[in-house]
Amino acid sequence: MIDTLLVGNRGEVAVRIVRACRLLGIRSVVAHSAADRDTLPVRLADDRVCLGPARAGHSYLSIPALLYACARVDADAVHPGYGFLAEDPDFAAACRDSGIAWVGPSPEHVALLGDKIATRDEMARAGLPVAPGSRTHVTDLADATRQARDIGYPIALKAASGGGGRGVLRVDGDDHLAECFGRAGASARALFQDGRLYVEKWVEHARHVEVQVLGDRHGNAISLGERDCSVQRRNRKLIEESPAPGLAVAVREALGDLAVRAARHLGLRNLATVEFLVDDRGEFFCTEINPRLQVEHPVTESVTGQDLVAWMIREAMGEPVPCSRDDVWSRGHAVEARITAEDPERDWAPGCGTVHDLVVPGGPGIRVDTWLTPGTAVSPHYDPLLAKVVSWGPDRDTARRRLVHALEEFTCVGVTHNAEALIAILRHDEFSGGEHRAGVVDRARPRRTASDEGAP
Amino acid sequence: MIDTLLVGNRGEVAVRIVRACRLLGIRSVVAHSAADRDTLPVRLADDRVCLGPARAGHSYLSIPALLYACARVDADAVHPGYGFLAEDPDFAAACRDSGIAWVGPSPEHVALLGDKIATRDEMARAGLPVAPGSRTHVTDLADATRQARDIGYPIALKAASGGGGRGVLRVDGDDHLAECFGRAGASARALFQDGRLYVEKWVEHARHVEVQVLGDRHGNAISLGERDCSVQRRNRKLIEESPAPGLAVAVREALGDLAVRAARHLGLRNLATVEFLVDDRGEFFCTEINPRLQVEHPVTESVTGQDLVAWMIREAMGEPVPCSRDDVWSRGHAVEARITAEDPERDWAPGCGTVHDLVVPGGPGIRVDTWLTPGTAVSPHYDPLLAKVVSWGPDRDTARRRLVHALEEFTCVGVTHNAEALIAILRHDEFSGGEHRAGVVDRARPRRTASDEGAP
Repeated sequence: MIDTLLVGNRGEVAVRIVRACRLLGIRSVVAHSAADRDTLPVRLADDRVCLGPARAGHSYLSIPALLYACARVDADAVHPGYGFLAEDPDFAAACRDSGIAWVGPSPEHVALLGDKIATRDEMARAGLPVAPGSRTHVTDLADATRQARDIGYPIALKAASGGGGRGVLRVDGDDHLAECFGRAGASARALFQDGRLYVEKWVEHARHVEVQVLGDRHGNAISLGERDCSVQRRNRKLIEESPAPGLAVAVREALGDLAVRAARHLGLRNLATVEFLVDDRGEFFCTEINPRLQVEHPVTESVTGQDLVAWMIREAMGEPVPCSRDDVWSRGHAVEARITAEDPERDWAPGCGTVHDLVVPGGPGIRVDTWLTPGTAVSPHYDPLLAKVVSWGPDRDTARRRLVHALEEFTCVGVTHNAEALIAILRHDEFSGGEHRAGVVDRARPRRTASDEGAP
Repeated sequence: MIDTLLVGNRGEVAVRIVRACRLLGIRSVVAHSAADRDTLPVRLADDRVCLGPARAGHSYLSIPALLYACARVDADAVHPGYGFLAEDPDFAAACRDSGIAWVGPSPEHVALLGDKIATRDEMARAGLPVAPGSRTHVTDLADATRQARDIGYPIALKAASGGGGRGVLRVDGDDHLAECFGRAGASARALFQDGRLYVEKWVEHARHVEVQVLGDRHGNAISLGERDCSVQRRNRKLIEESPAPGLAVAVREALGDLAVRAARHLGLRNLATVEFLVDDRGEFFCTEINPRLQVEHPVTESVTGQDLVAWMIREAMGEPVPCSRDDVWSRGHAVEARITAEDPERDWAPGCGTVHDLVVPGGPGIRVDTWLTPGTAVSPHYDPLLAKVVSWGPDRDTARRRLVHALEEFTCVGVTHNAEALIAILRHDEFSGGEHRAGVVDRARPRRTASDEGAP
């Protein structure tokens, strides 16, 4: 059993985890940086502990600070949220070694799935389709060029320890590869402390579709349906939805079955997401598996009625998860938009400031997950996510329109945000028709939609 | 078709109607009093029109002011919300006579169902069980006494034009009847401009259960399930839920079938609620039918996924409603709590003031319908409803606990409110066990629960 859970994160996900703890009757303690002392998650939690100064390296990214915080408040579990240390196998292992339950897949799975080359290999062994590409990392430019020619350009040059769209370059030919190979390795070393690269066939006009899986230590694994996350800007997701639009029934079912097969093959427990790229012809490739909570989990919660964060904690306490697809239903359609402190008019420059006026949208089908309250100081130290507005409707278009109206209602004076750009995307014909596609490298479409094509 | 809809109401229901208009692409105009000039519904609407001074008799209750407002903004429909003129057949007829669509049942139905004696008669004719009682109004004390003795005390002495718990007295014997008969008639004349009274068997330990029905001009009528509204203070509902707890399946189904039978018998179109009292043995009696939107409609929306206000408007445009029960599903459980500007510590004295700080709860399963924003002035002129917090869960206890936590998160500095008393009720064994009951006359239980028994 878990008595006290340390929330090793901040912002809206910290609020989310505190809420799940309350539902389960578990004492929640938010570990916060000095900059986040007065934020909503800290106010809502049963207790708080300061990790250190604002800089993440001294607070949210410091394993010693977090372990010390656990000891201070007698925590017997840690929920890492997403980002920060959520995919750090050293932190996961350190928790386990200290007798603290890690709310997420095992440290071994976190380590394995952090290595995207090893994951490709495992997925191929489990019978999942992976895009043509490296079986091991490329040793040098000559090796990369040979492999790229074998696959055929365009290819994706990827960092072995990247993931989530980070450390990915589209490369169109030998010269282009020669030009960016050294830079990509250096960048991977700097970002991920791992310079290894690999190549993979570039999937044109891909939809980014991910399947939510939930497993347990008893060998159960289930799919909770898929999400489309194709609306991205520089590989950062802006809008997500479930079910994914425009998928043939057979493709949708195949993705769910393959994700469960992958989870069973790995013996994966707790919550994870199996990511796929789906091309125009309905062909699909598994790209990676994220062994953690995703930002966009509320869309799945909205259509299934399941509480994913509560399930993570319950599974960490040894509870079996629902073991057949019949236990899980799905109704209607949900769409989420991420309101971030960024100014689309100034090339999405980060915004910061103090929230003076705040109107949180509501009404039928609207869920808002935010850490903002009147007076909240939004600092430049962290991720710019201000609020997730999630709409549900009996059909996709109702959900889409409700989300537009909710974003129009959203008011947050004092901090520049992107709500208008999100509205423009949601109103764009490509989105409303369900025809939007992902690019692995930066795509300008959402921005063009917002500024050049304008909102009706 | 409706191009412009006038919202003849204020507060959260005005916001709700504006949202439905936006979903349907209809221009919304909020008709507001001078006191409500800067409130959220006015800000969210496409346009606004001032009805007159704060006093409701000169604004929200003035038929001429509302008709003039319709003319000013070229409205082709009026949604009256609830309260104020929502059940005034003269206003409904005046709208129709002016060529303005009335979003609700026909003026004739509004007139008929406003007369509770005539409704009893019609319901009996349709084969619905009504509590033993008057077939016509009682002519004098001697008549009332004779009828009361026939029925057997305790009886309910009711105003023919009352309803919704107003104008109801529990009477325990002849002396008691003699004592209060004159006063009840005078009170009914003052409140409803109709001094007629009738008597009805008092149902002990009754659950107050109502069935939501939706009909159309094509003769379709459907039940959208029932709501339990037994948590009341002085006949004002505080907490509502759907499905109703503790009902045998046969009773639940019978109530739904009877409500649809009543709607079909009357040829009722648009939205209405058939109200029942259910006693401890599962015996039940139809008490009245409300031909309008209910405050507590969101619990039905949460479990069915239907947008009731949008349906009202669509039906008013001639659209057929879903015509079989198979078209409507119900999932999980929803509970609503009404946060009002009242001070339970001071005998629920009305609160007023300016909202200084406002934290609106969110997260999984939580919907908030409110008209508050930072800076909103809550005046003593109107109904004290500040916000409806609605929670959904896969089961009743999850919904109940989520609602408790949401109410704990709710912060509204500057206006005294009842959230703590609501939490105490929700945490009380009687409520958590689903064993709570209604009284038609004032019940003190919610208040005792809040102050004497305390929250855990």
